[in-house]
Amino acid sequence: VSSAEARAESEPPGRPAVEAGSRFLAEIGEQPAALLRLLEQRAAFERVAEEILARRATTIRMVGHGSSDNAASYGVYAFGLLPGWTALRDSISLTVYYGAELDMTGSTVLALSQSGRTPDVVDYLERARRSGAFTVAITNDTESALAAAADAVLSLEAGPEQAVAATKTYTNQVAALGLLAAHTAGLGARFTEELRVVAEIMAGLVPAVLERITNVAVSFSFAGRMFVIGRGAEFATAREVALKLLETCRVAAEPLTATDLAHGPVAALDALFPVWAIASDDETLPAVLEATARAREAGATIIASGSAADAVVGAAYTLPVPVPPTPLLSPLLSVVPGQLFAWALARTKGLDPDEPRGLSKVTLAR
Amino acid sequence: VSSAEARAESEPPGRPAVEAGSRFLAEIGEQPAALLRLLEQRAAFERVAEEILARRATTIRMVGHGSSDNAASYGVYAFGLLPGWTALRDSISLTVYYGAELDMTGSTVLALSQSGRTPDVVDYLERARRSGAFTVAITNDTESALAAAADAVLSLEAGPEQAVAATKTYTNQVAALGLLAAHTAGLGARFTEELRVVAEIMAGLVPAVLERITNVAVSFSFAGRMFVIGRGAEFATAREVALKLLETCRVAAEPLTATDLAHGPVAALDALFPVWAIASDDETLPAVLEATARAREAGATIIASGSAADAVVGAAYTLPVPVPPTPLLSPLLSVVPGQLFAWALARTKGLDPDEPRGLSKVTLAR
Repeated sequence: VSSAEARAESEPPGRPAVEAGSRFLAEIGEQPAALLRLLEQRAAFERVAEEILARRATTIRMVGHGSSDNAASYGVYAFGLLPGWTALRDSISLTVYYGAELDMTGSTVLALSQSGRTPDVVDYLERARRSGAFTVAITNDTESALAAAADAVLSLEAGPEQAVAATKTYTNQVAALGLLAAHTAGLGARFTEELRVVAEIMAGLVPAVLERITNVAVSFSFAGRMFVIGRGAEFATAREVALKLLETCRVAAEPLTATDLAHGPVAALDALFPVWAIASDDETLPAVLEATARAREAGATIIASGSAADAVVGAAYTLPVPVPPTPLLSPLLSVVPGQLFAWALARTKGLDPDEPRGLSKVTLAR
Repeated sequence: VSSAEARAESEPPGRPAVEAGSRFLAEIGEQPAALLRLLEQRAAFERVAEEILARRATTIRMVGHGSSDNAASYGVYAFGLLPGWTALRDSISLTVYYGAELDMTGSTVLALSQSGRTPDVVDYLERARRSGAFTVAITNDTESALAAAADAVLSLEAGPEQAVAATKTYTNQVAALGLLAAHTAGLGARFTEELRVVAEIMAGLVPAVLERITNVAVSFSFAGRMFVIGRGAEFATAREVALKLLETCRVAAEPLTATDLAHGPVAALDALFPVWAIASDDETLPAVLEATARAREAGATIIASGSAADAVVGAAYTLPVPVPPTPLLSPLLSVVPGQLFAWALARTKGLDPDEPRGLSKVTLAR
C-alpha cells in the first residue's frame, strides 16, 4: 500500500493541498498527547508483564524494521536496567529466511510494527510462537495480521500517522518498551507517573526548539553526510535521528556509538562532515564527550543535543533538552531536536518531508 | 599506542619508506595463510566447545568494537545455524557503564579484540565472568589483559597486522566463530576441511580481483557516500566493507540490511550515491535482488559482489566470487572484493590506506 493509498483510506478525496512538511511537523507536535494516550493502556501492559513473569519468559527478543528496530535498541537498556533481563534485537532473517529452529521457550517476542503488516515480522512472530516463545504484538493496528497472530497485543495508540517518516509511533514504541519493562520490574506505577511528566516537558520542548531550529538547519543546507552519535540508551536516538535525515533530507547520516566513532569512522571526518552528538546526563556521558573531542580535533562541526548538550566543548550549535525525572526516559526528549532538525533541513533543501521520494508508509519489501 | 609506536616495536629503525597502502594490500593477500594457521588451533577450539557443552552455556554473548563487532554479526548466523543457539552482539555499555547486573549463568562470552587490550571489552569480560558466564578471549595476543582475564583463550593466529585497518584479523575472527560453532554442533572436522578449501579459493581470488579493481575504483573517485547492503550472514560483510571505506577512503559508507534499505534509506539515493551489494547464493538472495532493483529505480549505481553477483540485474560493475563448499563460508570470500576496492579507491584518492588520519592500531578510547 503506497502512502497515497494509505491516506486515501482515511481522508476524503479533493482535500486541499497542504504545505510541504506540515503533516510531519504536526505529528512531532502530537507526541505528548500520544504518550498520554499510551498511558491509558497501562492495565494491558500490567497483564502482559504478569504473563511474562508467570511463564518465566525473560529473554526478550525484539523484532522490527526501520524506526521500530531503532526503538528496539532502547528496549535493550529498558529491560537490562529495570528487570535486569537480556533483551536483544533478534535476527529476522535467521528464523524467516534460513529457517533456523531455535528453542524459544523462556523467550518473549516483542514484535514492533506501526501497521502490523510488515510481512517478515509477522512471519517471524508465527515461527517464534511455534518455537515456544510468548509473543506480543506492539502496533497501532490491533486488528492487523500481526495482532491476530500474537498471544497478546499492546496497542501503541499513536493515532493515524500520515507523514511517511514515523515520529509519534517511534516515541510511543520507546515508551511502550519502557513501560512494559517497568511493569515486569514492579515499577509500573512510578514509571507511568514519570512518563506523564515527560509528556508535559515535551509539550514545552517542541515549540522552544522549533523557534531556533531553522537557523541551525540553514547552515547544513549543503551537507551530504553526517554522523549521529549516542551511547547506551541514547544509541536508539542516534539511530532514529539518522534515519529521519536519510528519509527526509537525502543526507547520508550514519548512526554510531560514541565508541564506534573512534574505532574507524573518525578517519572519514573533515569540516564537511558534521557530527550530531546526543549527550545525556548519564553514565555514558564521558564516552560521548571523549568522542566529540576527537571529532572536533578532526575538524568536524558538532551539533550537540540532549540534556548534557552544554557539556560538549566547542559545539557549533547546542540544542539542550530538559532533564527528565529518570535518566532512562531521556531518549523521549533527546529525539525531538533531531526530528525538528530533519523537518527544517528538508524544507531548507526544498524537499517535502511528508512524502519522501521512493518511500511508502507501509513497507512490504522483504 | 599509536600505529607508529606499534610498528616501532616490531621493526628495526631506519627501515625504508614503503609505498602507500602496501601493508594493507600485503595483509589482504596473507589472509589464506592466516586461515590455515588458525586451523592448526583446532584442538583448542574443540576443547572450548566441549566446555561450553559441559556447562550448558548456550547463550552466546559476543562483544567487540569495529571489525571485531562486524565479525560478531557473522557469529549470530554461525551459532544460529549450526548448533541452533541464540547468539547476540551484547551491549557493552549496559554492563560496563550502567553497571547492570544480568544473570549470565548459561551464557558463554566470546570477547573479540585483535590486541586483547580494548579497555571496555576487558572490563565487560571481567564483569560477565563474575556474573556466571563462561568467558573466552579470541585475540591475536594470548598474553594480553583480555586473555589473562578469561576462562579460556582462542588464539586468532592472524600474525602481526601493521595496516591500521584490519583485514586478516577480521577474516580469522569470522573463521574462528564459525569453527567454534561447528565444533559445538559436532561438525568441527567437516568445517575444518571446508575452511581449508575456502583458503585455497581465496588464494586464487585475491590476484583475480586485484587485476580488475583499480578500473572499478577510478569511477568512484569523487563518491563521498555509499550504502553497502547484505543480508543474513553477509550483513557482517556489508558492515566490514563499509568500515574499510570509512577508515581508508573517507567515504560515508553505511551498512544496511537489504530490508533496511527499503525502510527509509532508499529515499536518500540518487545517481551520486553508489550502492555496493553483496549477493550470495543463499536463502537471502531474493531480498537482496529486490533491494538492488529498488536502488536502481532510484538511479543509484550498483556494484555487485558475492557468489551471486551476476544475478543482480543492471549492476554497473560485477565482482563475483566463487561458490564456497558451504554457503555459511561465503562471507570469507565476499569480503575480499570490498577490501581490495577500499585499497584501490584510497590510492585513487591519494590517501594512504596503511595509516588513515586520526586512527591508531590499538584503540583505547571509551
